[in-house]
Amino acid sequence: MSLGKLYGIGVGPGDPELISVKGARLISDTKHLFVPIARVKKKSVALDIVKKYVKEGTNVKELVFPMVTDKSELNKRWDESARIIADTLESGEDAVFLTLGDALLYSTYIYLLRSLRKIHPDVNVITIPGITAFSAVAALTGFPVGEAKEPVTIVPTSDDLQAVRDAIELGGTVILMKVGKRLQNILDVLEEMNAMEGSVFVANAGMESQRLVTDLRKLKGENDQTGYLSTILIKTKARPDK
Amino acid sequence: MSLGKLYGIGVGPGDPELISVKGARLISDTKHLFVPIARVKKKSVALDIVKKYVKEGTNVKELVFPMVTDKSELNKRWDESARIIADTLESGEDAVFLTLGDALLYSTYIYLLRSLRKIHPDVNVITIPGITAFSAVAALTGFPVGEAKEPVTIVPTSDDLQAVRDAIELGGTVILMKVGKRLQNILDVLEEMNAMEGSVFVANAGMESQRLVTDLRKLKGENDQTGYLSTILIKTKARPDK
Repeated sequence: MSLGKLYGIGVGPGDPELISVKGARLISDTKHLFVPIARVKKKSVALDIVKKYVKEGTNVKELVFPMVTDKSELNKRWDESARIIADTLESGEDAVFLTLGDALLYSTYIYLLRSLRKIHPDVNVITIPGITAFSAVAALTGFPVGEAKEPVTIVPTSDDLQAVRDAIELGGTVILMKVGKRLQNILDVLEEMNAMEGSVFVANAGMESQRLVTDLRKLKGENDQTGYLSTILIKTKARPDK
Repeated sequence: MSLGKLYGIGVGPGDPELISVKGARLISDTKHLFVPIARVKKKSVALDIVKKYVKEGTNVKELVFPMVTDKSELNKRWDESARIIADTLESGEDAVFLTLGDALLYSTYIYLLRSLRKIHPDVNVITIPGITAFSAVAALTGFPVGEAKEPVTIVPTSDDLQAVRDAIELGGTVILMKVGKRLQNILDVLEEMNAMEGSVFVANAGMESQRLVTDLRKLKGENDQTGYLSTILIKTKARPDK
């Protein structure tokens, strides 16, 4: 029996209408829908976003991707999930896997695919891109992400303040994802590098608890929780040699 | 009479099904659809992408955004187009404007909005983000754009080879847009910086003439036209201090 195809779908930043037309169609058409959860008994955020497109009778299966940093634990989970998806594909049926935002930008899907290719190197995978969180944040705040010849740099985590500095040095726009507990340290860097003006902060974009802050000075002194699930878009000064 | 709302819609990278569900719905619902063209009598690429969503009887109006670099000429065109859109909004009706890819990433829409805000500073604008070309290219080639803590840098033009070098120095993934006539010079830089391995080239993504090249060495010596409408995704080595 020939192997089924896997469709990996980026569901976008959170609004059910910000998935692609193709993604919504494939979700409606599939018999086998695999959705990521952070832990057993937790709801799947990705499934919650697309639930209006899921037809009754669809076989929805949760795959646990724990929020841990231990590499061997993660590898084990990715391999287990890939094995579960492989079971369906081996029955000759196609399957859909959901992932938040864009499919190949800082997603668990990347690692899941690697595990699946260890089992079936020639598996047919069709990836449907999605709208990234930063595009949604930019749309909410009217922030021009990329302009003229200026670069855009995405720094996926703020643990490394030197990476933040390096990106600001490059000029153009800097996108900080997963700001987390380092918010106050980042604000210090932005102040020191004269990059607060014109920058914006968004927490919980697209959710009911969404918070937009367009004057970053107002965030100074707030507690560690403020940075959780937030994005900062930074408009830097042009590079001095430009 | 109160001013109508402007909806600015990113239509995505080219596949009619890669627009958001929301964008498709707003296009179907609008009475006034503004579409960009490069010059008079040229077809609108953005309109061509979404034509299946446009209802009969929709008032489609072309706005010319010429491919020129002269700032004062461009400003004049943006102001003229903004004036035409303002006429519709002043009649109290809403309008939709289409833009390729994501709405706020290297788009003419950014400049059009600035011109419109000069006429009506308080105009109500709702921006619908779109899937960027690089996400589509990544999906086509299975290229993991962002991983772990590595940065992603978008360099919008290759005129400035130093900007390409700086971005590669930063590590992670580098996205080169509008490669243009500098393709051979860029290949030289990639070879010199040991960044050819794992990088991919895509020309005319999503079109019939689409071309994917996963071994960049094969492009060496090709003519100037090869770089036109193409994107390069570069997987750099990790920074030496990581």
